[in-house]
Amino acid sequence: MKKTNLLIIGGSAAGLLTATTARKTYPDINITLIRETPNVMVPCGIPYIFGTLHSTDKNVIPDAMLKDANIDLIVDSVLSIDRANKTVTTKENETIQYEKLMIGTGSLPTIPTFIPGHDLDNVYPIIKDSRYLDKLLEKVEAAQNVAIIGGGFIGVEFAEQIRLLNKNVTLIELGESCLWQAYDKKYSDEIESMMTEQGIEILTNNKVSKINGSTAVEEVELESGKKIIADLVILALGVAPNVDLARHAGIKLNENGAIAVDQYMRTNDPDVFAAGDCAEKTCFFTGKNVPILLASTAAMEAKIAGYNLFDLNLVRTTPGTISAFSTKVFGRTFAAAGITEATAQIEGFNYVVGEFTTMDHHPGSLPGTQALHIKLIFSKASGIILGAQISGGDSTGEMINILSLAIQKGLTATELNTFQVATHPLISASPIAYPINSASMNAMIAMK
Amino acid sequence: MKKTNLLIIGGSAAGLLTATTARKTYPDINITLIRETPNVMVPCGIPYIFGTLHSTDKNVIPDAMLKDANIDLIVDSVLSIDRANKTVTTKENETIQYEKLMIGTGSLPTIPTFIPGHDLDNVYPIIKDSRYLDKLLEKVEAAQNVAIIGGGFIGVEFAEQIRLLNKNVTLIELGESCLWQAYDKKYSDEIESMMTEQGIEILTNNKVSKINGSTAVEEVELESGKKIIADLVILALGVAPNVDLARHAGIKLNENGAIAVDQYMRTNDPDVFAAGDCAEKTCFFTGKNVPILLASTAAMEAKIAGYNLFDLNLVRTTPGTISAFSTKVFGRTFAAAGITEATAQIEGFNYVVGEFTTMDHHPGSLPGTQALHIKLIFSKASGIILGAQISGGDSTGEMINILSLAIQKGLTATELNTFQVATHPLISASPIAYPINSASMNAMIAMK
Repeated sequence: MKKTNLLIIGGSAAGLLTATTARKTYPDINITLIRETPNVMVPCGIPYIFGTLHSTDKNVIPDAMLKDANIDLIVDSVLSIDRANKTVTTKENETIQYEKLMIGTGSLPTIPTFIPGHDLDNVYPIIKDSRYLDKLLEKVEAAQNVAIIGGGFIGVEFAEQIRLLNKNVTLIELGESCLWQAYDKKYSDEIESMMTEQGIEILTNNKVSKINGSTAVEEVELESGKKIIADLVILALGVAPNVDLARHAGIKLNENGAIAVDQYMRTNDPDVFAAGDCAEKTCFFTGKNVPILLASTAAMEAKIAGYNLFDLNLVRTTPGTISAFSTKVFGRTFAAAGITEATAQIEGFNYVVGEFTTMDHHPGSLPGTQALHIKLIFSKASGIILGAQISGGDSTGEMINILSLAIQKGLTATELNTFQVATHPLISASPIAYPINSASMNAMIAMK
Repeated sequence: MKKTNLLIIGGSAAGLLTATTARKTYPDINITLIRETPNVMVPCGIPYIFGTLHSTDKNVIPDAMLKDANIDLIVDSVLSIDRANKTVTTKENETIQYEKLMIGTGSLPTIPTFIPGHDLDNVYPIIKDSRYLDKLLEKVEAAQNVAIIGGGFIGVEFAEQIRLLNKNVTLIELGESCLWQAYDKKYSDEIESMMTEQGIEILTNNKVSKINGSTAVEEVELESGKKIIADLVILALGVAPNVDLARHAGIKLNENGAIAVDQYMRTNDPDVFAAGDCAEKTCFFTGKNVPILLASTAAMEAKIAGYNLFDLNLVRTTPGTISAFSTKVFGRTFAAAGITEATAQIEGFNYVVGEFTTMDHHPGSLPGTQALHIKLIFSKASGIILGAQISGGDSTGEMINILSLAIQKGLTATELNTFQVATHPLISASPIAYPINSASMNAMIAMK
């Protein structure tokens, strides 16, 4: 029987970063990572296999990090966890004894079993396995009419990438707007109008009633009666924590079906940790359980877990998890952090908004300049920042992280109005119109 | 005699943003801005007139901000300030009475009068006046061999832009490295090697002894005896506060010749404020007077001044000014905030360094990916961040501002190790290798 000090189940963001963090924190322990696939897909890179990389080989997380950290890698599936004996057994009939166990089993795509025809040929959920995605890549390249069900990030990013291949693309979303969980209407409207201009048909406020076809899909039928011709359907209805293994081992789950953890990623078993999509997230603002299933969240949690496995080394400095998103659609970047105005209303925050528009280079006559729109949401009485949304050029991708940090540290409009920044003509807005400063100033006026 | 509630002298970053901030803070006052030039150059955009914009017209700060804020604009020169009567008199013989006065007279280029030949024809300091720069643009376009004296940001940026026009460019720097005030050697070496690869001759550790020529410059002679053929010389030896007007009015200057101000930009006269390059800066870390003459610093100070002219509305939330720089040279961005390792040593800080290298997109096979190097400097005992340097793609320009904010708020390696970020394949590093998190982790290991 193999014995290891630390056994990690799962080789994506949570597993990998727990392994490398534990190695740096505990130089002398033996660490084993077990995963199901021979290689690991960059999870957020999956849409870009289709319209940009044209190959799954180019979307692999290199194993060099594991080798450099002297982690034992096993490609196999864990079938069960025996917490009493502190062992796991695998499909290849191996038994491994652990001292500490980290569960990073991630999430699985939601399969809409309530939609008749969801199991027809050429109907594909997105599964993070290169062998499966190789097959899907062939199907996408051969398709003429692609319907995508679900207008979240995966749906929107697949729609953009497949449209770049000149396919007819229809995106169907149940809610009022694509990406409504991340952006208020002004920003989702901007995304939708760009996509529509590029020839993508967007059907919001629409529910799929059936997927029709003999053996393979032929059309998608909506509750409105509208029928969309489709020889390929992508299911992008979100993901849910992959917790079967944990549940069967008697690890406590929360009411949303995620593994319950404390702020140091410990489960109800002190020798079992969980991090990433399979673990519960506590909302930074309200303490509620929230489904923020992002690789960046997984990475943060993995660091917390990796440091604290054998003793509590690294104090967690925030009360919970914030949303922090970015995406790029047809050359324009959209980013958000914290809560939207819509969520602020639902939760009952008394808030003010500060908005601003400027050019993302200065002067705006410089090549590559894009307009940048920013919206900041502050608590009206306390002045503390609650949320941010930005659309603009590539710089938006890091500008949002200034706000991610500001939210996590509880900074105020006063502080964000006058904090000092570096600017440069070719890569940023003008210092006299720096977006975060300027939008914070406008919010302060609204607070008066 | 014209009367105004607020008179602002100077129309660049400090004057302009004081005007618009005062308008938002004090909606009902009369505001007058007086400046010397019919239009205002984007100050940091000046180098890009030469190799990118090919015109000063494209580098103008639009007057729309002033018009929208209902600011009276006068193009004229203030000759003197009479503080007893609270008036100024101008070259056009106007007298204007003010209630509050804001001096934003900026800086003037340092002229090396100690170098024989500094006043020959075709030897140009950089003056922020479009009429002067139009003439220089003609000269640059006609030149074959351009020598640039001074390897700071202006010198480096002019060298890059003029090299894009296929001129022979020689850059002469007194110190050991170009940009040594902003970057430690590893980063300045990277900049220098890129510039050398592109055909710029860089002569560091070299002092100019004479500029030779009959009426116009023909060569630059170094103390080493080396002679550089040059039909155009750019003087980029830095700038100094433009304070003649203030001094003659009896406004107190500090020992470096900048206008002495308190933290709300008030001079020794309670009705006279100063902001921008002409005003003194107090080092965030040491409280010393430091010459950080940047448009972004001017913008921050202008906001502080604009809010606080008639009553103290906006509390300043930092103890002083930090350096925060970015530049882009031949497609690569270099940014820095806070103090360098060299400065940390000089000041006697007990520090640790955390470094990290990764790709700025993920997977790294995506188009446009560049390697990103980051170096963070932390106080060893307190863990507080002191400085940051980054080289990479365009995203570096905003990533440095995460660190600018972190420095200004006194954040620690623990906080920066695990703060949560938004990431996306096309625009950022991988969440499992997010540069700030990863470099902070390496610094924590070094602290143990």
